Amino acid sequence: MIRGSFRGWAVAAAWGIIMGATLQVHSDEGMWLFNQPPVKVLKERYGFEPTSEWLNHLQRASVRFNSGGSGSFVSPNGLVMTNHHVAADMLQKISTEQNNYLNNGFHAKHPSEEIKAKDLELNVLMSIEDVTARVNAAVTASMSPAEAFAARRKIMDEIEKESLEKTGLRSDVVTLYQGGVYHLYRFKKYTDVRLVFAPEKDIAFFGGDPDNFEYPRFCLDICFFRVYENDQPAKVEHYLSWSKEGCADGDLIFVSGHPGRTSRMYTVAHLEYLRDHSMPFILNYLRRMEVLLKTYGERSEENMRRAQDDLFGIQNSRKARLGGLAGLQDPVLFKNKRTAEDFLRKQIDSDPKMREQYGSAWDDVAKTLEAAKGIIRDYHLLERGLAFQGDHFSIARHLVRYAEESNKPSPDRLREYRLSNLESLKLGLFSDAPVYDDLEIVKLGDSLSMLMEMMPQAELTHKVLDGKSPKARAAELIRHSKLKDVAERKRLFDGGSAAIDASNDPMIKLAKLVDDEARRIRKQFEEQVEEPQRQAYAKLAKAHFAVFGDKVYPDATFTLRLAFGQVKGYEEEGRFISAMTQLGGTYEHSAKHGGKDPFKLPQRWIDRKHAINPRTPFNFVSTADIIGGNSGSPVVNTKGEVVGIIFDGNIHSLVLDYAFTDVQARAVSVHSAAIIEALRKVYDANDLADELTRGQAASR
Amino acid sequence: MIRGSFRGWAVAAAWGIIMGATLQVHSDEGMWLFNQPPVKVLKERYGFEPTSEWLNHLQRASVRFNSGGSGSFVSPNGLVMTNHHVAADMLQKISTEQNNYLNNGFHAKHPSEEIKAKDLELNVLMSIEDVTARVNAAVTASMSPAEAFAARRKIMDEIEKESLEKTGLRSDVVTLYQGGVYHLYRFKKYTDVRLVFAPEKDIAFFGGDPDNFEYPRFCLDICFFRVYENDQPAKVEHYLSWSKEGCADGDLIFVSGHPGRTSRMYTVAHLEYLRDHSMPFILNYLRRMEVLLKTYGERSEENMRRAQDDLFGIQNSRKARLGGLAGLQDPVLFKNKRTAEDFLRKQIDSDPKMREQYGSAWDDVAKTLEAAKGIIRDYHLLERGLAFQGDHFSIARHLVRYAEESNKPSPDRLREYRLSNLESLKLGLFSDAPVYDDLEIVKLGDSLSMLMEMMPQAELTHKVLDGKSPKARAAELIRHSKLKDVAERKRLFDGGSAAIDASNDPMIKLAKLVDDEARRIRKQFEEQVEEPQRQAYAKLAKAHFAVFGDKVYPDATFTLRLAFGQVKGYEEEGRFISAMTQLGGTYEHSAKHGGKDPFKLPQRWIDRKHAINPRTPFNFVSTADIIGGNSGSPVVNTKGEVVGIIFDGNIHSLVLDYAFTDVQARAVSVHSAAIIEALRKVYDANDLADELTRGQAASR
Repeated sequence: MIRGSFRGWAVAAAWGIIMGATLQVHSDEGMWLFNQPPVKVLKERYGFEPTSEWLNHLQRASVRFNSGGSGSFVSPNGLVMTNHHVAADMLQKISTEQNNYLNNGFHAKHPSEEIKAKDLELNVLMSIEDVTARVNAAVTASMSPAEAFAARRKIMDEIEKESLEKTGLRSDVVTLYQGGVYHLYRFKKYTDVRLVFAPEKDIAFFGGDPDNFEYPRFCLDICFFRVYENDQPAKVEHYLSWSKEGCADGDLIFVSGHPGRTSRMYTVAHLEYLRDHSMPFILNYLRRMEVLLKTYGERSEENMRRAQDDLFGIQNSRKARLGGLAGLQDPVLFKNKRTAEDFLRKQIDSDPKMREQYGSAWDDVAKTLEAAKGIIRDYHLLERGLAFQGDHFSIARHLVRYAEESNKPSPDRLREYRLSNLESLKLGLFSDAPVYDDLEIVKLGDSLSMLMEMMPQAELTHKVLDGKSPKARAAELIRHSKLKDVAERKRLFDGGSAAIDASNDPMIKLAKLVDDEARRIRKQFEEQVEEPQRQAYAKLAKAHFAVFGDKVYPDATFTLRLAFGQVKGYEEEGRFISAMTQLGGTYEHSAKHGGKDPFKLPQRWIDRKHAINPRTPFNFVSTADIIGGNSGSPVVNTKGEVVGIIFDGNIHSLVLDYAFTDVQARAVSVHSAAIIEALRKVYDANDLADELTRGQAASR
Repeated sequence: MIRGSFRGWAVAAAWGIIMGATLQVHSDEGMWLFNQPPVKVLKERYGFEPTSEWLNHLQRASVRFNSGGSGSFVSPNGLVMTNHHVAADMLQKISTEQNNYLNNGFHAKHPSEEIKAKDLELNVLMSIEDVTARVNAAVTASMSPAEAFAARRKIMDEIEKESLEKTGLRSDVVTLYQGGVYHLYRFKKYTDVRLVFAPEKDIAFFGGDPDNFEYPRFCLDICFFRVYENDQPAKVEHYLSWSKEGCADGDLIFVSGHPGRTSRMYTVAHLEYLRDHSMPFILNYLRRMEVLLKTYGERSEENMRRAQDDLFGIQNSRKARLGGLAGLQDPVLFKNKRTAEDFLRKQIDSDPKMREQYGSAWDDVAKTLEAAKGIIRDYHLLERGLAFQGDHFSIARHLVRYAEESNKPSPDRLREYRLSNLESLKLGLFSDAPVYDDLEIVKLGDSLSMLMEMMPQAELTHKVLDGKSPKARAAELIRHSKLKDVAERKRLFDGGSAAIDASNDPMIKLAKLVDDEARRIRKQFEEQVEEPQRQAYAKLAKAHFAVFGDKVYPDATFTLRLAFGQVKGYEEEGRFISAMTQLGGTYEHSAKHGGKDPFKLPQRWIDRKHAINPRTPFNFVSTADIIGGNSGSPVVNTKGEVVGIIFDGNIHSLVLDYAFTDVQARAVSVHSAAIIEALRKVYDANDLADELTRGQAASR
């Protein structure tokens, strides 16, 4: 699954660091901005011209899951469709030992039965405004990296604060093309989100880790929520109607969603850095967490229930990154990248003015990579919190830092504590999502052990461990902390520095102990890596514009993008893989694996086998250019009707982080027809199916 | 499980490198040499004096599994008892997609049905001879490390060759107390070994990875073989008779087996090296293999059958090493080690003569650790073969090296190609154990990827990959190699250098390509780490002898040792854990976990539930000092009768690598009574039960 959960790419972000921008466009390539759609390509290749109404409607019917993923409005009554795996985190949080909604599914027969999600924020992009000039004006060439970083942070915060005060909308300044362009995105925010329907995990994630990122597939990876305003289902103007037939082989389709991160603009040296440094480190970490969570989970069914969403996320990242590394270790990819880089450098070098303006970009990037090598491990351990895994430390750090940061004017604060982000921060911090002490101890114990492995000689390590073994220290910290109690969090949050200073909570004391060093390394990282890399890539982006023109799309940044492509099969090891699977194939696929987990079907699917039309299309692949974060994106036809929902990319698509290809890389979707068939025939959810298809009639 | 499979500790050995020796003895501590038994301690603590007949009988009834493990003769007709998990490798090798003996068990109702094992060698220790003087005489103080290394190798080879020629017995010179003592061990060798009985994996390894190294336990971790000579069951003079009652709480028991490796003599600096360098590296590697094999295995049942023995071994090592690392990360262990080291150094420093002779030992060790840090990664990748996992490369390397080494006189050869080891080498090399191309590609592909991660800039890496991605290169190598064919291996072996030079087999060419660099790094390792470390620990051993006298046991070296202890429970988190479990508890333990894998019982155990006496003792713990390699060791009472069989240590015992403790550390055994009860009531194996208990009557 291609979910771009924040957990997943909180880590990713630090390795990706600064995203690239702009590439030349071939075939169905591109994650396009809604205010800069690929009109020309669409017209030339497909004879289709999207109108601004078409684009505006699709944009406003698209939903971002701030927990990491995409979705769409599919009825006038605030019904939202996304993937089961995007919702998994939330399903896990509302589950208990008695009611395991993640595994067993859920269906609210009436709005009154809908279950309120914990700390889930949905965003709808309402407007885009170009603020490039204003941001650039605040940063001058004479500034040091530290000054530039601060000045940029400050102006971005000012713009956001102004916009929030003026419009009441969540306002984010988004960096595109690495400083080539800054856009102000305004979002309508929904925080009262309720669960309407989820299938069982065994059909949503049928085939589990073995089938993940593979094709053919047979997954009903869907989930429905409803957004509320003032305790009533929200009325939404823009929602997608449901296609009567769905899509067929060869059809042109569109994907509107939030691809997380791509690194297509990266220099060859940067890709080598990823291949030889970042990826091995992160993969070791992911394998470590996978084994840890798996061994914890296997001890009992309740343990597995507590750990499984984390575990899915980790396994998913591991498989995705292994695919990415395989791409980076393929000499063909590097040869192509090198050829492209050589071409661009030659163009730049051939023009003295361009050479002066942009010629140093590659070396500038290389310098930041050298700096990163010396900082990155400690940055991960201390600032990104790899050495202090679990909810307790994360809560403690927010409380400690907020107490300090809230004394400063908003633009001077660490960015996550800026005023415009306060509501989102509190949503997470005061969530009553369950926190399990035993799992917290396991995670924290292992990460303290990792701290000791990686920084055995550091004085800080010894202070953190306080003369105990990692496991004993973790148990002591978790058992004596009161941060599980939301009221205690609120007390410390509201009490500010005085409350934090007076607190004897061992977790608060740990967060304080670590903070100086963590801030120091963060500053070092920002000044020696992040900011100079941003400036170097801004140069590189301009070099691209200068040579190739500006008809290009920026690297993904978890902001709304439009992709397009065709429903289309592919060749693999001499065999042709058809674009579509059918519901009937699910049973054969299960039987082929002895019906054993993770190829076991839910009882309901076995019981209803004969009610289902086996020829109903189930999953399909297309050439659309997607990546993690696109999970849950609606797939629409030229009429803007839902024909499916993205839930994965195939194994060949994992290289799309670095370069587009449509030879074998494919996006994987659930077909709209399978959703209706399953709702009606398997789940007796005619109410929901009617709501979806009523929408279809109404909008035409 | 505490198995010390060669695979497991081929890796371990390189990290442990040179084993320690000698410690002061407290309580039931000690892995004693049979020619230096703990007579005084036994008499003082337990009022028991073993006679030399008692010792000789037990020694000759003990069996070493060269695949890594222990066992014993339990009938006059060559019947050998060991653990299911010691036999797992072999059970996997004789299994097919149709007959999965590893999972489903096996029972030969008649000798004609017994299945011949593939490349399994059993050794029985016939005699011990002290050759210290002769070895030491060959190495002089003026020699460089390289010269000393060669001289020692040469004299050991001479002694072994002489002994082999004289006695026809397998002859190994064993280094004990790190050059304090060299013993010549002569073994009777059995290579016609046939499977008699194995239970189902689900009861042998009941509770799987979650229960591994835990207690209370409910495992029938047993397996029976029979050794043959001249196609007839071998008549053995020394075999263990079966105790009528088995052991009870508080009983004195003995364990005769082959503990693999301990590092109790290591200096504090050396333990820090293990904690901060070796263990993190090896654990990353084990987690990597675990995730790789697990994801391969989960794709289908047949895949899992192919991978599962490897996977068990890896998971077992991972859990054991995590326990070991936890011990090393416990500041209490280091405090104790430091106190002991300070005491010894003070004693040595207080005597000018001792100071001159032994005083530099600690610094000498430290120097080798510094050297190791610069070599060890490449040594593992290239010489230990971590970069070329799978049977193909291992076979190719042996063929390439044998062709070269066989042109030299035996003492000048790399040690594994010495004449006295030739038969054992050929047994493995010409084994017709199945080799699965798909699994070979997965393993080799991943290890080539690891090579690229760890040595991305090395010229050798590029030569190895030959312009392809790791996966593509692995597939090409495996698909085009003919080494799966045993006849081809024989042809190349017999053809010597000419055949190797003429071979176009890509695997042979790869082994040749890597060989210069691998030999170079091996030589560097031997000269800068192995040999000076051996000399430093020899000094340290002598310092120990000088201060504490010689009533001490050497660190484990996978040679026969005698341990003793009491059947005895322990406290854990405020709860008392009884020494014994009962057969009836098995069903409760399964039910508590919903009867799901790995807590699923074999159908036969469910069907026969009411036939079994639920009060029969099943597993028990004792204070005996054991470690990996002791798996399958017979547990005997003062009469030398079988009362059980070792199969594991509890979680607290994992620190025994570094220091003995009997506060919570326990050895875990299957009780003799449970074996008979299960054979008769569950498996209808009265023939086998009769053979075991007939032996009991006959020997008294």
